[in-house]
Amino acid sequence: MNGAESLVKTLLASEIDVCFANPGTSEMHFVAALDRVPGMRCVLGLFEGVVTGAADGYGRMAGKPATTLLHLGPGLANGIANLHNARKARTPILNIVGEHASDHLQYESPLRSDLPATAALISDWYKVGGQQSIARDAAEAVTAARSRDGQIATLILPADTAWAPGDEPRVAQAPEPLLQADVNAIARAVQAVRSGKRVGLLVSGPAVESEGLRLLSRFIGKPNVQLFAQQSNRRFARGRSHLVVPRIPFNIDLAVQMLRDIETLVLVGSHPPAAFFGYPNKPRLLMPADCEVISLLEPGGDTMHALAWLADELGCPAQGQAVAEARRPEMPDTDRLDPDTIMQAMATLLPENAIIVDESVSSGRSLFKFTDGAAPHDFLQITGGAIGSGLPMATGAAVACPDRKVICFEGDGSGMYTLQALWTQAREQLDVVTIILANRSYRILHGELKGVGIDAPGEQAHSMLDLERPALDWVSLARGHGIPAVSVNTVSGFARAFRNACAHEGPFLIEALLP
Amino acid sequence: MNGAESLVKTLLASEIDVCFANPGTSEMHFVAALDRVPGMRCVLGLFEGVVTGAADGYGRMAGKPATTLLHLGPGLANGIANLHNARKARTPILNIVGEHASDHLQYESPLRSDLPATAALISDWYKVGGQQSIARDAAEAVTAARSRDGQIATLILPADTAWAPGDEPRVAQAPEPLLQADVNAIARAVQAVRSGKRVGLLVSGPAVESEGLRLLSRFIGKPNVQLFAQQSNRRFARGRSHLVVPRIPFNIDLAVQMLRDIETLVLVGSHPPAAFFGYPNKPRLLMPADCEVISLLEPGGDTMHALAWLADELGCPAQGQAVAEARRPEMPDTDRLDPDTIMQAMATLLPENAIIVDESVSSGRSLFKFTDGAAPHDFLQITGGAIGSGLPMATGAAVACPDRKVICFEGDGSGMYTLQALWTQAREQLDVVTIILANRSYRILHGELKGVGIDAPGEQAHSMLDLERPALDWVSLARGHGIPAVSVNTVSGFARAFRNACAHEGPFLIEALLP
Repeated sequence: MNGAESLVKTLLASEIDVCFANPGTSEMHFVAALDRVPGMRCVLGLFEGVVTGAADGYGRMAGKPATTLLHLGPGLANGIANLHNARKARTPILNIVGEHASDHLQYESPLRSDLPATAALISDWYKVGGQQSIARDAAEAVTAARSRDGQIATLILPADTAWAPGDEPRVAQAPEPLLQADVNAIARAVQAVRSGKRVGLLVSGPAVESEGLRLLSRFIGKPNVQLFAQQSNRRFARGRSHLVVPRIPFNIDLAVQMLRDIETLVLVGSHPPAAFFGYPNKPRLLMPADCEVISLLEPGGDTMHALAWLADELGCPAQGQAVAEARRPEMPDTDRLDPDTIMQAMATLLPENAIIVDESVSSGRSLFKFTDGAAPHDFLQITGGAIGSGLPMATGAAVACPDRKVICFEGDGSGMYTLQALWTQAREQLDVVTIILANRSYRILHGELKGVGIDAPGEQAHSMLDLERPALDWVSLARGHGIPAVSVNTVSGFARAFRNACAHEGPFLIEALLP
Repeated sequence: MNGAESLVKTLLASEIDVCFANPGTSEMHFVAALDRVPGMRCVLGLFEGVVTGAADGYGRMAGKPATTLLHLGPGLANGIANLHNARKARTPILNIVGEHASDHLQYESPLRSDLPATAALISDWYKVGGQQSIARDAAEAVTAARSRDGQIATLILPADTAWAPGDEPRVAQAPEPLLQADVNAIARAVQAVRSGKRVGLLVSGPAVESEGLRLLSRFIGKPNVQLFAQQSNRRFARGRSHLVVPRIPFNIDLAVQMLRDIETLVLVGSHPPAAFFGYPNKPRLLMPADCEVISLLEPGGDTMHALAWLADELGCPAQGQAVAEARRPEMPDTDRLDPDTIMQAMATLLPENAIIVDESVSSGRSLFKFTDGAAPHDFLQITGGAIGSGLPMATGAAVACPDRKVICFEGDGSGMYTLQALWTQAREQLDVVTIILANRSYRILHGELKGVGIDAPGEQAHSMLDLERPALDWVSLARGHGIPAVSVNTVSGFARAFRNACAHEGPFLIEALLP
């Protein structure tokens, strides 16, 4: 048994059975081992950003890590942006990165680079594996990926660790228990609520998944407690029968407005709410300047336990209140296609138990308004601001959940970063409907230019923000990757295409041409 | 005058007038400054790998740096792979990377990351610029990019350095003089040649551009001196009237064969010849084990002076010998399209003074055989092994040389990494003919699997190397990006398409379907 086989057997024994891959020469022994050791599902991505973004989507929905298989320093570098997004979400991912053979690294060769430093940039845990310790190293990496509510673990494997004899395969140990909330912080939070102050609970992570929302509903009876979710979250349970928890808006003025009455902000596994970007003459933090901030525990701690503990201390009912049903969405009463009418129509037609992936950037900000009362679904979003996450995330979510429809809202600007994901959807015949909101512009940047005080961009600036000359033709792009597609420019046209796409299994793309 | 304007004026005063850009919010003041300060040509890329790869192609052909404009840590990370290639080539590039405002970095926000560590990974020089020192910092960065025969310089600019008042624009200082060859090494090399030993001169960098080849032709009269070029080089002057200098082959056995008689290997601005990858039971270095190695100077030193000095010491004629004309290529006598017949037909039909960009990986290894006697041209190639360099490099080369036809040989696997470059070619109406060698496979990896001892890959391994199911349709992909395209599967079909493409200006793509 060579090292590559030890590795694959250890991963399988540790319940890691999906590998998103873009391998090269230094990974050939691992590729060969996949034939000899059955059980690993390998999914090829034509670019590493697809591979890491798919691992992010998979980890969010499967609740366990996938492994990636990447080629040397530049291969890992190509995957950094979506690992950045995954790390901000605390998605568990295990990267296996091939390196030159140990005795070859001393020589200058084209692909030689500082791979450990590259891994350090984006990993919570990383290690260079050794000959005959590959199973032990892999088990350690799996444990690291599962720790602290999800981490990025990167195992660098010189080619000779794969071709040399391997050590005995093993099962990864369970992660250390999660860190608990601080008892003094709990006491202070209880005190604030009892004092009658206006208290905000800012939550993220598991608190906005189904079980977490049920916990949060225990606080509904407290009239001076308001619930808020971070702007970006790993996975949000949404739609009918789920508690509606408003997200902090991207727009600073709206965010400040939302939080303006809060006297004590209790952070439950979330960071202090900060602006997405710093602007001249705008605040950096979003809560009032004199607001008391109490952090019960850091992200990665035992958020669920902290919420239950706080609810118990406050004497909240054990079961929480029944959730008031939001109104079901209805079809728009106009045929004019714009971001709102698309979201509204989609919300109305959404199949049960779908997964919505949102990277529509500027177009999608009204989505929650329409989906509060839509069919129950999970909502995945970009978490680290590094665009190019949507198409790969939808791909990985569909691999994790073959029985659920995945709907991906994608901007034309952001979609272009990792459009190669469409090919993987075609190859694996994944059940993903991609909706491209084609405004033919980095529309968000027009707002951002205004935000820094420039109301009328000149020709050069304009040309840096617009995607016209030539217009991208997403129907051709989809077909080039092997995916059927249509272009629509009315609500009725969109609804027809969306209904058709939902009625059939397999990948489909709808280009929605916005005015 | 704000910092952004100080920056743009300093760049223009320092003769940097092309900016490949993919900006975001933190760069909006720079974008706005481009309208107020005329003279900078801005070229938008829809993915950062396109931006950095285009800067590489531009720098190779213009002989001076372009600037890139990138957005925060993930934006730079997306550009790392092609900066890796550029750095190995010693292409001068100046990266301007926007960072969060200085007083915003203390807060956790989605796009916060360790940008200096990211820059350190891939830069020969980097700095975080300050308020009111932006012109000074930029001038320093330009000098760094121009130093040591070309470096990667990265200037990180917090958003407030752009919106705060700027310092006085200035002109970048000239770089330090290049390091000279070691006098003792020259003496040893002279001694080796005089002793009658079989001596190899291994060159790269400026030595294989026009002027360098003229210098090398001075050595032709020395019967015991053989010339070799590194396998990968920044820019190679090729075709009729240029000295033919063989490159060290990728294949280890062929490389060892080429160097087997060499007793003394003299490195002139090149590294000791090492294998591209380390394999079990193959040598790591390619020259004979008992071969004496003499390094006249490191890469980045004064290669041209070293060559002239050595030639003078050896009493070589001042002018060099006339170059024996290689035979002009002729059209293949078959209509069967394969990598060789494509290269042969292209070489026969090549317009004068073209630029060939080669990232055809496995398909292009026979190219030089056919282009020795083709019309004079420059040859650019991937230098760091990080695939995804070809389409962007062709884009940048065409921006640098608007009067020259650019021919880009691209593999279907490697092309998919940065296919978004096609859109930039369409927008800028660049004169690029892209030839996709569609073998629907990572063909090189089939060979690499054999290289590590696996002759018959199983189904999983096979599926990781093949690009079928579904086949990529490059004609649709090109059209989706706004580029006309045809698919061909015969030599005559290819020749017709290539002639047509060369007869017209503007971008065109030919998908060559290989058996």
